[in-house]
Amino acid sequence: MARKASLSGFPEWLPQERAVEQHVLDTLRRIFELHGFANIETRAVETVGQLLRKGEIDKEVYGLSRLAAEETTKSDPNALALHFDLTVPFARYVVENAGHLAFPFRRYQMQKVWRGERPQDGRFREFTQADIDVVGDGTLPFRYDVELALVIAEALSALPIGDFRLRVNNRKLAEGFYLGLGLQDTAGVLRCIDKLEKIGADKVAELLKTELGATDEQVAAALALAQICTEDTSFVQQVRALGITHPLLEEGLDELAQVIEAAVRRAPGKVVADMSIARGLDYYTGTVYETVLVGHESLGSICSGGRYESLASTGKKNYPGVGLSIGVTRLVSRMLGEETATAARSVPSAVLVTLANDESWHEAQDVAAALRSRGIACEVAAKAEKFGKQIKYADKRGIPFVWFTAEDGTHEVKDIRSGEQASADPAIWLPAAADLTNQVTAAG
Amino acid sequence: MARKASLSGFPEWLPQERAVEQHVLDTLRRIFELHGFANIETRAVETVGQLLRKGEIDKEVYGLSRLAAEETTKSDPNALALHFDLTVPFARYVVENAGHLAFPFRRYQMQKVWRGERPQDGRFREFTQADIDVVGDGTLPFRYDVELALVIAEALSALPIGDFRLRVNNRKLAEGFYLGLGLQDTAGVLRCIDKLEKIGADKVAELLKTELGATDEQVAAALALAQICTEDTSFVQQVRALGITHPLLEEGLDELAQVIEAAVRRAPGKVVADMSIARGLDYYTGTVYETVLVGHESLGSICSGGRYESLASTGKKNYPGVGLSIGVTRLVSRMLGEETATAARSVPSAVLVTLANDESWHEAQDVAAALRSRGIACEVAAKAEKFGKQIKYADKRGIPFVWFTAEDGTHEVKDIRSGEQASADPAIWLPAAADLTNQVTAAG
Repeated sequence: MARKASLSGFPEWLPQERAVEQHVLDTLRRIFELHGFANIETRAVETVGQLLRKGEIDKEVYGLSRLAAEETTKSDPNALALHFDLTVPFARYVVENAGHLAFPFRRYQMQKVWRGERPQDGRFREFTQADIDVVGDGTLPFRYDVELALVIAEALSALPIGDFRLRVNNRKLAEGFYLGLGLQDTAGVLRCIDKLEKIGADKVAELLKTELGATDEQVAAALALAQICTEDTSFVQQVRALGITHPLLEEGLDELAQVIEAAVRRAPGKVVADMSIARGLDYYTGTVYETVLVGHESLGSICSGGRYESLASTGKKNYPGVGLSIGVTRLVSRMLGEETATAARSVPSAVLVTLANDESWHEAQDVAAALRSRGIACEVAAKAEKFGKQIKYADKRGIPFVWFTAEDGTHEVKDIRSGEQASADPAIWLPAAADLTNQVTAAG
Repeated sequence: MARKASLSGFPEWLPQERAVEQHVLDTLRRIFELHGFANIETRAVETVGQLLRKGEIDKEVYGLSRLAAEETTKSDPNALALHFDLTVPFARYVVENAGHLAFPFRRYQMQKVWRGERPQDGRFREFTQADIDVVGDGTLPFRYDVELALVIAEALSALPIGDFRLRVNNRKLAEGFYLGLGLQDTAGVLRCIDKLEKIGADKVAELLKTELGATDEQVAAALALAQICTEDTSFVQQVRALGITHPLLEEGLDELAQVIEAAVRRAPGKVVADMSIARGLDYYTGTVYETVLVGHESLGSICSGGRYESLASTGKKNYPGVGLSIGVTRLVSRMLGEETATAARSVPSAVLVTLANDESWHEAQDVAAALRSRGIACEVAAKAEKFGKQIKYADKRGIPFVWFTAEDGTHEVKDIRSGEQASADPAIWLPAAADLTNQVTAAG
C-alpha cells in the first residue's frame, strides 16, 4: 500500500490495485465453481444474539442503530450488528433454508466482514473473506476433509502469490495422544503447546508442569509430538515411535494420513502434516487447516479452517461441516504492498478509438461496437484533440492500442509501446491474447 | 420471492436464485468493462459528517458503534455510519485519490448499500447498486452524457429482463422553458409537475396557480410541456411549437437531441425523450435519466441518474460528473418473484463423477481433474452408494450428466434428462455449450 487509508483499518484500492483483487476473487471463484461449489451471499447484518452465541467476541462487533431512532440498548439480543465472519451467518442460513437446500451442501461465499479491532499490519476493520464449506444433514463423510484440502491447494496455486504451505493437523490425533499420555486436560495442554513459537520449549515445559502437573516424561512426549512435521505420511511412524496408544489417536492418525496421502498425489509439496498446530483446535473437532505464505510467515495464516462436528443445529437436527476461509484482504494488501503481483493497466480497455474530427464520433462508435462484439474492451475519445493528446490519454491508462480512421475510411491501429502501426479491419482485428484483457502477473 | 426474509428488508437468495443475481452482475460487469469502465470498491463506512453533507436523509442512515465501547454521540460528525448510496463515497474517493487517477475517470462500482427505511415491495434495507460514472477534472465534455445512455441501454438489453424504457430529460430544457414562460421559481414548478402522475393535471394546475401564482396560460404551457414524449428528436419541434424561447431552453433542447439522436441509431426504441420527468431534476444540472421495466412500471425506476455540475469539489478543484445507478436488488427480486428469469441448476457442476466402489475415489478424481482442465465444472461422489442414489444426487441439483468408470477402465457418460448413455474419453469429452455453464434464461 503506497497510500494510507483515510480511515484506519478500512483499506481502499486504486483501480489498478483493485484489478489485482478482482483477479484474486475471479480466480478463486473459477476454481471453486469448477469443483461444484455454489455461491451464496448472506446479509451483512445479524442479530447481536446470533453473533454472540459463541461468546467472547463482543468487543469486536460493530452494532447498528438508525441515526434517527432513540438510543437502542446494546444488550438487546435483537439489536442488529455487522457480521465478523462468514461462518456464523452461513450456519444461520443453513438452518433457515434447510428445507430448500440439497445436502451435502457445498457453497462458497466471498463477502466483506467487519471487526472493531485495533488495525495493524494484516489486520483490518473491514476486510473480504472467501469461504468454502461443505455441510451435511446429520452426517458428512470424512472424504470432504480430504477434498477441501485439495480444492484450497488448487485455488491458492492458481493465484500469483508464490509458494505456500497448507499445514494440516487433527484434533483427535492430539487429544488422543495426550489422553494416551495420561493428561486428561487436553484443552489445557493445547493452550500451552500453542505458545511454543512465542515462548520456546523450556517455558512451555514449565507451564505444562506447573499448570497441569505433567511429569518430565509427559512433557517430553508432548513436545516431541509438536515437532513432527512431514510432507508425506511418514508422520504416522514418527508418532507411533513415541510409544503412545489410544483409540482416538489411531482415528486421528488415520484421518490425517488420508488427507496427506491424497495431497502427495495431487498437490505435492503444498500440504504438510504439522503437529505443532494447536490454534483453533479448540473450535474444531477433527481436521484443522492453516496456511502460510512462504517468506511471509509473519503475516500469519492466510487461510484457515477445519471440521466442525456441529456447524449448526436445531432441536432435532445437527449439521456437521468442514470448511476453510481465505483472508483475501490480508493476502491482497501484502501483494500490493510488496508489489509481488501487478495489473498491466488501470482500465479494462485494450483500445482507444481516436477521433480525426469531432463529427467522426458516430463512425468511431461503429468501430468500437465492432471491436466489442468480439470481446475487445475499448473507449472512444470524447473530443477530437490533437492525436498526441489522444495517445497520451491511452498511455496514461496503460491502454496498449490506439485506433485511427482516416477520412477515406481506412483504418490503422498502433501499438503505442512499440510504435508499430498497421492497417486493420474493425470486423476482424484482434490483439494478442496477453493484451486482450488486463493481465495480472506475479512480479519477477 | 417464494420465501420471506428472516429479517424484514434484508433479502437473501437460495443458490439457484443467487445464480440469477450473479448472472445480472456478471453481465453488467462485462458490458461496463467492454466500454472501458474500471472497477473500484469503497469502504461500506463513511463518517456521519460526510453522509449528511447534503442533508435531509439522516433518518435513513445506519450508525455504527463498537458493542464494547461507551455510548457514542450520534451527532458526532466523525462517528461512523453505513453508506446509503455509492455516489457520496465515490465523490470522497475522487477527492482523496485525485492525484492517482486519470481524468476523465470512468468507473463502475457494484456494492451493497443500506437504508433504515420501512421495507416494502421493491424497497429494501440492504440492497445492491451497480453504478457507472464518468468524472472530469474541471470540465467534462457533454458527449459523456450521450455515451452513458448508450452504455446503460446496451447493459440493460443484455439482461433477461424483457423490455425497458430509458426516459431522458434535461434540467436546462425544463428550467429554460419555465423561465421563458415567466415563472422564476423553477424548482417550485418542478415540484408541482412531479405530482402529475399521482394527483392528475387538474390538481397540478390548481397548485401552480395557488402556490406559484401562475396564470392560466402559464399552467397550460407547463402541462403541455410535460406531455411531450417522443422516441426520436421530434420533441424539439413539439417544444418549439409551444412558442416559448429562452437561451437555457435552447441549450437543453440541443443536449437532449444529441442523446436521442445517438440512441435512435444505436438503441432504437429503448430511449425516449420524456418531458414529464421532474424527479431528481433538483439534484442534477443537465441530463437526467430514469428507467422503467415495461409491464412493471409500478416497481418504479430501476436505473436513474444524471449530470452533476459538481460531483465533488475541494477549495481549488471542481469535479463534474455524469452517471447512472442500477437498482440490482430491486430488479432481481422482481425477476425472482415473478420468475421472469431462471437458472438451469442450483450448482455450477455439469457432471457428477460416480463411484463404482469406495477405492475408485482417486481414479474418479483423475477423471474430474481432466474435465476441469477443460473448464467443465464437476463433483466426485463422496461415497460408493448405489448408482440410483448417486444419480438422484445429481438430479436433485440439476446436474445434467453423470460419469461412470467401469472396472476395466472404460468410461461412459449419461445425460440423466434424456437417459442417453455413451462411451466417453475424459481427455476430450465436452458437453453442449448450453450445459457447460449454469444458464440463466428469460422465461417464456
